[in-house]
Amino acid sequence: MFNVKYTEDTWKFIFPILINFFMSIIMYFLTIRLIPKIKNMFIKANLYGIDMNKKSGEKVPEALGVVTGCLFLITLFLFIPIPFTKYILNDINFPHNEFMEFLAGLLSICCMLLLGFADDVLDLRWRHKLLLPTIASLPLLMVYYINFNSTLIIVPKPLRPWFGFSVDLWIFYYLYMGMLAVFCTNAINILAGINGLEVGQSLIISISILLFNLIELSGDLWKAHQFSLYFMLPYIATSLGLLKFNWYPAQVFVGDTFCYLSGMTFAVVGIIGHFSKTTLLFFIPQIINFLYSVPQLFHFIPCPRHRLPKYNKKTDKLEISTAIFNKKDIGIIGKFIAWIFRKLNIIKWQEDDKGIVTCNNLTLINYVLIKTGPMKEPTLTLILLLIQIISSSLAFLIRYPLASIFYEV
Amino acid sequence: MFNVKYTEDTWKFIFPILINFFMSIIMYFLTIRLIPKIKNMFIKANLYGIDMNKKSGEKVPEALGVVTGCLFLITLFLFIPIPFTKYILNDINFPHNEFMEFLAGLLSICCMLLLGFADDVLDLRWRHKLLLPTIASLPLLMVYYINFNSTLIIVPKPLRPWFGFSVDLWIFYYLYMGMLAVFCTNAINILAGINGLEVGQSLIISISILLFNLIELSGDLWKAHQFSLYFMLPYIATSLGLLKFNWYPAQVFVGDTFCYLSGMTFAVVGIIGHFSKTTLLFFIPQIINFLYSVPQLFHFIPCPRHRLPKYNKKTDKLEISTAIFNKKDIGIIGKFIAWIFRKLNIIKWQEDDKGIVTCNNLTLINYVLIKTGPMKEPTLTLILLLIQIISSSLAFLIRYPLASIFYEV
Repeated sequence: MFNVKYTEDTWKFIFPILINFFMSIIMYFLTIRLIPKIKNMFIKANLYGIDMNKKSGEKVPEALGVVTGCLFLITLFLFIPIPFTKYILNDINFPHNEFMEFLAGLLSICCMLLLGFADDVLDLRWRHKLLLPTIASLPLLMVYYINFNSTLIIVPKPLRPWFGFSVDLWIFYYLYMGMLAVFCTNAINILAGINGLEVGQSLIISISILLFNLIELSGDLWKAHQFSLYFMLPYIATSLGLLKFNWYPAQVFVGDTFCYLSGMTFAVVGIIGHFSKTTLLFFIPQIINFLYSVPQLFHFIPCPRHRLPKYNKKTDKLEISTAIFNKKDIGIIGKFIAWIFRKLNIIKWQEDDKGIVTCNNLTLINYVLIKTGPMKEPTLTLILLLIQIISSSLAFLIRYPLASIFYEV
Repeated sequence: MFNVKYTEDTWKFIFPILINFFMSIIMYFLTIRLIPKIKNMFIKANLYGIDMNKKSGEKVPEALGVVTGCLFLITLFLFIPIPFTKYILNDINFPHNEFMEFLAGLLSICCMLLLGFADDVLDLRWRHKLLLPTIASLPLLMVYYINFNSTLIIVPKPLRPWFGFSVDLWIFYYLYMGMLAVFCTNAINILAGINGLEVGQSLIISISILLFNLIELSGDLWKAHQFSLYFMLPYIATSLGLLKFNWYPAQVFVGDTFCYLSGMTFAVVGIIGHFSKTTLLFFIPQIINFLYSVPQLFHFIPCPRHRLPKYNKKTDKLEISTAIFNKKDIGIIGKFIAWIFRKLNIIKWQEDDKGIVTCNNLTLINYVLIKTGPMKEPTLTLILLLIQIISSSLAFLIRYPLASIFYEV
């Protein structure tokens, strides 16, 4: 079945993946048992939010991502010895470099889990949210440096007349990887706010990565994809467990903790598995949402504290949320961006005669609501997840059939 | 000065330690700048306690150990490349095993920091407090297995007629190391409750380890001690910064976070540095406090929720705190222990004619108060820290002059 280019036979190669798979199944059941038991501890600790899109106004425990994150880490801690038993038992040269990848990956993920939880509890500032993931990814980049240090990228065919066959990005490749970690952790966090969306999109991304790994298991870089599978399976299992409670109507919120954990996990497998560009392809909706949000994130256009869609109690539907401001208060860049967005017809912009502007908050969620009109929360989540699935299909299209246009197969 | 048995010269050997030292100094100043700025975020997040030994009843931010813990980790993340530059720049065989030790140590510490913070926020149960540190120490034990796997211990001279020169403890050595991590993390946590005590004792233990490392730098195992120094210096720097705010009258509390972080840091350097037995020698007061607490911890004698000394508002002094119960309610083991403790004169035990017993809570702090009578809080802390210093001196006495009685020098 698999074209394994190594001395061991197929069974030895599949064995650790199977063990990981069964551990993940156990973890799924542990997750769905543990969350209902533990969630009141969160409310007692003042870690809760009020679901602004519901009538009830109940306290919903927040930051439950820390529970699935810990279960995910525990699975991997218990799993680590498995892929290495053959070296230990037969006293063959131990593959230190592979073990290092495990440790560095877990270290970065554990740091992000800590940071995410601290953020949920303490409400960190933006500079921390950018600085700390960068530092958390340092051990990972160092392991990349030690084990591979390949900073060459193959230039796509159409660009080769100018750049040649390959370009050595040198230190910029490390900068790119560091920024990938920061981007992944924050990108999921800003495409959020309705029940099930954070976990749903993360699950679709992780399942896409899983499929990609399974396809590539028969290739030359199978080891990297095996490594990625070890992380993806328990990640998917624990996140599925979480989704059960986070789906509409949400009994728990996942918190920044979950978003950070997810982003860093994807960055880890992308970097260590050498498929960071493919990983980014699975982030198309997040990239679009980020680019669309830029004018508000960088305050070219005023940004209210929350950009969630607005809940209409009468209809029980979600409507677009808006920022209201005086046109005079935005600078020339903001005016220029607004002009482009209006030309592109991707913004809802209303000006009254006094120059007071009402415009939608620039999120993908609101954009969908502009196109569809008000709708119920679970339908909106489903549409956004559908967009994510379509994007993943597109990513596979770019990665496989279309890649031959740009690269040799 | 140092008898370095390696190809590089003394300067290259001291260079990373010096860099680490200067980074630690910077971190000290960062710590004392950051804590006052950040402490209100903790109160806002409902992370505070009321100091029961003060009249004011002010809210004191809790779990500030997470701040020093993060700064400690950041220092080490930034520092990691330094000891390895010579291998990277000169393209010599990279010492993967040493790098693995770094990563595994950091991973265990980061996990404990997360666990400690989760405990402070969520108030975890006892079984989590025992289970999770065990799991957190797994990567460390695995690295020990891969790099050393030496489970032989040299038998002390007097016991050799029975056991021979050395004994292979095999899997029990790993059990011992795993339990060391659990013990260290919890032992500091139960010798606590008055301003400055947690940080004070941890600082004395870490300075003792530092001295021990400096002495042993000239020995054969200098690499392990150099490794330990890399961890101890920033640990001491950040903890000193914390002590400044935790000393009487405390402006901040350190939380379980700090105790777990400290315990795991000591376990990490002890295990990776091969001096876990010496590390335990520096824990004499904690061991005594633990043994003395056992009857209450295992509920042979009733244990109230808090065992802090009692504050007397009129005198502004601390008095012993007591447990009050009916003699009938304790079992035979409890009665037996109480009988021994009374014979040894290490318990204050009063019975009235109805069989109602008033006995001191079994902590080292209360024991000191039995011997000295009520006293002011900072004096009590100073006495307990003095005991810690005397114990460390004793540890050095056992480790050096007296060791020749038991082992060949």
